[in-house]
Amino acid sequence: MRILGIDPGIAIVGFGIVDKEGSKIIPVQYGSIQTEAHTPEEDRLLHVYEGMVQLIDKYKPDTVAFEKLFFNRNVTTAMTVSQARGVMILAAVQKGLPIGEYTPLQVKQAVVGYGKAEKKQVQEMVRIYLRLKEVPKPDDVADALAVAICHAHSYTLNSMLNEVLRK
Amino acid sequence: MRILGIDPGIAIVGFGIVDKEGSKIIPVQYGSIQTEAHTPEEDRLLHVYEGMVQLIDKYKPDTVAFEKLFFNRNVTTAMTVSQARGVMILAAVQKGLPIGEYTPLQVKQAVVGYGKAEKKQVQEMVRIYLRLKEVPKPDDVADALAVAICHAHSYTLNSMLNEVLRK
Repeated sequence: MRILGIDPGIAIVGFGIVDKEGSKIIPVQYGSIQTEAHTPEEDRLLHVYEGMVQLIDKYKPDTVAFEKLFFNRNVTTAMTVSQARGVMILAAVQKGLPIGEYTPLQVKQAVVGYGKAEKKQVQEMVRIYLRLKEVPKPDDVADALAVAICHAHSYTLNSMLNEVLRK
Repeated sequence: MRILGIDPGIAIVGFGIVDKEGSKIIPVQYGSIQTEAHTPEEDRLLHVYEGMVQLIDKYKPDTVAFEKLFFNRNVTTAMTVSQARGVMILAAVQKGLPIGEYTPLQVKQAVVGYGKAEKKQVQEMVRIYLRLKEVPKPDDVADALAVAICHAHSYTLNSMLNEVLRK
């Protein structure tokens, strides 16, 4: 199963694609969609949407996992990023892909086993999980891979649960 | 010039289409795109996007005006509505339509001439401007027409200004 993990943003959208084969999680591709500051909001949204469509067309994921936004300070930023998140969810649903959403807490719990883990710990665990030489940069990319790993774990747990229930 | 005014939302998106002919503003169509509660967020976003595409295809506006969100209380609501706003802006920019954005203050100023006007005053002015028998319901529809009227005024002011500057 191929998972596309997304760390939403308007300037930088981190993406991480992993294949889940049995208990293994293998990195396929990761990087970012970036938009230029000082360009009209609508053009940036179009760019993010088209970038997302291209990713889906090229890598053909089976499912897309998004980090849930958690903001309690800057509402303006929250709204701007949410607009971008909306067009990315749209791209996924137009392709008929099932969507997963995880809070930062859930991601940390899944990747480090501890909801209050620090950013650096999460990134280091991502590196170890995926057998990478270095932590992917910028942070948004490592975060997107963490979301993809979290989604992979959640699928595993669900299928294990289903198996137990079937018995 | 035909203007599509939008009052963004996720449960109810108000829309109002007006033709600006000289100093006259003529109502063309108004109503709402509605999505069902308790359905997945991604399906609601798709529904809003497709509703918006249909509106643009059917009524062929020259420009789209959105109300800017102004939230200072419920960030969760702000983020949900922003996602919907994102897919609507996307629909407009994909059709190559120029976009206008107005704060509630700007809309009130344009329609009533007073930024602190009450909702009822704005709605009554919308009714009078467009020579309607009754205030359109729900409120979101009247709000969308107010945004369209605001956009029409702003265009008039800009073209007057350009004419003065040319002399």
